[in-house]
Amino acid sequence: MTPEEFRSAGHQLIDWIADYRTDLDRGPVLATTEPGQVSQAFPSIPPTEVRTMSEVIADVERSVVPGLTQVQHPMHFGWFPSNASLASVLGDMASSGLGGLGISWESCPALTEVEEVVCDWMRQLTGLSEHWSGTIQDTASTACLVALLSARERATGHSQSAGGLAAVDHPPVVYTTDQAHSSVRKAALLAGYGADNLRSVPVDPDTYAMDPAALQRAIEADLADNRQPAAVVVSIGTTGVTAFDPLADIVAVAAEHAVWVHVDAAMAGTAMLLPECRHLWTGVEQADSLTWNPHKWMGTILDTSLYYVRDVEHLVRVMSTNPSYLRSDSDGEVTQYRDWGLPLGRRFRALKLWFHLELDGIEAIRERIRRDLENARWLAEQIEAAPEWRVLAPVRLQTICVRHVPRLAGAELAGEELDRHTLAWVGSINRSGAAYLTPSILDGRWMVRVSIGVEGTERSHVEELWSIMRSAAAGDVVGSR
Amino acid sequence: MTPEEFRSAGHQLIDWIADYRTDLDRGPVLATTEPGQVSQAFPSIPPTEVRTMSEVIADVERSVVPGLTQVQHPMHFGWFPSNASLASVLGDMASSGLGGLGISWESCPALTEVEEVVCDWMRQLTGLSEHWSGTIQDTASTACLVALLSARERATGHSQSAGGLAAVDHPPVVYTTDQAHSSVRKAALLAGYGADNLRSVPVDPDTYAMDPAALQRAIEADLADNRQPAAVVVSIGTTGVTAFDPLADIVAVAAEHAVWVHVDAAMAGTAMLLPECRHLWTGVEQADSLTWNPHKWMGTILDTSLYYVRDVEHLVRVMSTNPSYLRSDSDGEVTQYRDWGLPLGRRFRALKLWFHLELDGIEAIRERIRRDLENARWLAEQIEAAPEWRVLAPVRLQTICVRHVPRLAGAELAGEELDRHTLAWVGSINRSGAAYLTPSILDGRWMVRVSIGVEGTERSHVEELWSIMRSAAAGDVVGSR
Repeated sequence: MTPEEFRSAGHQLIDWIADYRTDLDRGPVLATTEPGQVSQAFPSIPPTEVRTMSEVIADVERSVVPGLTQVQHPMHFGWFPSNASLASVLGDMASSGLGGLGISWESCPALTEVEEVVCDWMRQLTGLSEHWSGTIQDTASTACLVALLSARERATGHSQSAGGLAAVDHPPVVYTTDQAHSSVRKAALLAGYGADNLRSVPVDPDTYAMDPAALQRAIEADLADNRQPAAVVVSIGTTGVTAFDPLADIVAVAAEHAVWVHVDAAMAGTAMLLPECRHLWTGVEQADSLTWNPHKWMGTILDTSLYYVRDVEHLVRVMSTNPSYLRSDSDGEVTQYRDWGLPLGRRFRALKLWFHLELDGIEAIRERIRRDLENARWLAEQIEAAPEWRVLAPVRLQTICVRHVPRLAGAELAGEELDRHTLAWVGSINRSGAAYLTPSILDGRWMVRVSIGVEGTERSHVEELWSIMRSAAAGDVVGSR
Repeated sequence: MTPEEFRSAGHQLIDWIADYRTDLDRGPVLATTEPGQVSQAFPSIPPTEVRTMSEVIADVERSVVPGLTQVQHPMHFGWFPSNASLASVLGDMASSGLGGLGISWESCPALTEVEEVVCDWMRQLTGLSEHWSGTIQDTASTACLVALLSARERATGHSQSAGGLAAVDHPPVVYTTDQAHSSVRKAALLAGYGADNLRSVPVDPDTYAMDPAALQRAIEADLADNRQPAAVVVSIGTTGVTAFDPLADIVAVAAEHAVWVHVDAAMAGTAMLLPECRHLWTGVEQADSLTWNPHKWMGTILDTSLYYVRDVEHLVRVMSTNPSYLRSDSDGEVTQYRDWGLPLGRRFRALKLWFHLELDGIEAIRERIRRDLENARWLAEQIEAAPEWRVLAPVRLQTICVRHVPRLAGAELAGEELDRHTLAWVGSINRSGAAYLTPSILDGRWMVRVSIGVEGTERSHVEELWSIMRSAAAGDVVGSR
């Protein structure tokens, strides 16, 4: 495709995207396709004919769009917000259009240096000290793996440069809670620790936050058992109920035993753009590594996960390679981001963050975050005031965990009957397309997470949701969208 | 940013990208900025004012573009081609514009199913049997890590679900050659094998391909030493000289000892789009995993790395997580790509491949690959026929490894003097901006890799390069671009 063909097709696509985003809220939130329906719309053998942009766009409309769950829809309250702000989409377009390649500083100096600049801007915007150095990773899952690999190597005296993990005398151990994101367990297993060396530290039964005294006891027990406490993964905003592990207490325990502290603030990091929220991660300056995802609530399009460390030298020692074909005269005086993570080649991701900050502006982003916090407080108040409705955990940010517990024949619904009721009302909302909420398990029973924070979600949408929730729980048919 | 603001800014950016790509070949190939020059053009504190698209584009032109090494430039012959075809750029734009989120099938059925479709198309287009199932990873480095984790778990009876690698009795071992990509060593170390359990199998001194008899001996020695041969990483086109390890012989050796075979065809996979090249990976059907990068020579923009396995069940067992908040009614009947790799969240990468295939067409892509193969043959012939020039390894695809070895006072330049001469002439070309070539080390001495395959590189550019190389080696000043 020539640049002139691209110009013409590109204008067409821009118009289509603008129209699509304009009309997004007219359709259902949840994808309407059955398993296999999208793939069956495609030929089973690869295309041989060249097609026009108009034909491909028509195919996207016909075959792809019905198969999209609309996470940009203002009535999407599922999982966590995954905003793809249009300002950051432009940054992503610029990245693709430039076609740069990040495999070394030399292969694209601007790619490296703009990433350094915006990571440092984001550090300042979240109130972190200048002791932190940052990079962009694809996701918090990958960042957690990098953290646990770094912790493994520190705890085992760099076993990777000798006999590997099979040769260590004291198996390294990872600590977290059963509220931590599934990626923590995955990272620990992939890093070779083994399930037997992954400790689920008890949580406070009301707040679902890690109990630091229990952490201390677990570490001491492992030391007595000839194991090497290596890392504690602290959730700053858990996925289930947005619980905040007590970081200040945890870093104190960890420091006693030189245990690596990784802070997983994937979702809640966005809140740290607001000075009034930063008390939620007090103690962060004593951690070793930290990740949060602008591609969630803040809205810099996926994949934009920030990963900060205090000891860059250690990170590079664990991650580095230096083959001759990647050497350059500038080695030593420049940053080689390939040595800060897993992949060698990287996209020019920093442009997404840069464009987002320049075109939307940090103050508008902050106002939106505050709007969402207020909307969550409002909804939590409505739920708490309503008979038969329960808010199940402290609402610290924008996620509210709820159950509707009706009284039948004088007794509250419980056990499996309550589970069936919960799944019935949330299922009826989700299937209607009018809104989307995530069913999740808390204390062994289903509950419903209402996660507020889509860029387009205003108070009116939250009011509409609350009305839909009450109708659905009462067994009324939810009007479809 | 509203959709209407996006429409206006998007049209501006499309025009800018089209102009940029049109004029790309007028500027220098190598970035012209000194270390720190790009970052110093940015304010050290984050912006507080909102700016317009015109202002941001002006900044990109002023501060970013001079810091780009132009890997899309037709005179770029460095590393490996990293084509960012404009057809695939449109696919990437569509992905960003749609703003879908891949964390489960349900979160975006189309994202999962289109990925299944295009991975299967690419399987067919490279002549692989239907025993392979594919997914898109960011890079071949990550794919290699996934492969070595899978191999580790097979060799250790799924140690991750018990005591981890520290509890195994027989340390698992990885085999490759010193010609393998640096990411193989990195992946083995990160997967916990340890440097002591990474074997560099000797290569044939003329072809730089793995010696299968030496592999057999290495495996037997490790077995005798109570170690567990776990994986062999086979390079189908090495980074240095594009050597092809003899895959058919290697899979036979590996099968005897149930050793995992991972095929790293990052660069050369593109050649398998041509039936006449597929003899280069004879034996591939007996391998366990396979990766290649459409984001290199084929030109589907980074990050598009295909990863195929034959045993999906094993992959999922090693990689899976299944927390309640990600469960859906469709589990079991749909593909959950989060269990096929490291990150949980994924972009809609399949659109890049789909748009590329539809808008450019596979036959045009194949013609371009054949053009590059012919250009490489032509250049290799010129070099071989020229006095004092040497082609250092068989030219199997599009990369030519060369030295200029002048005679001074009747004797050929050698040793460190030859190194200085090599680095001097390649350095003068690279600094001039007229072309870019990668200096690399072979058999302990510097050589120069000429890697042909940028989308815009025609025979005339290769002729120009050859003229520049001769001038530079003769000590003439290379005209700058």
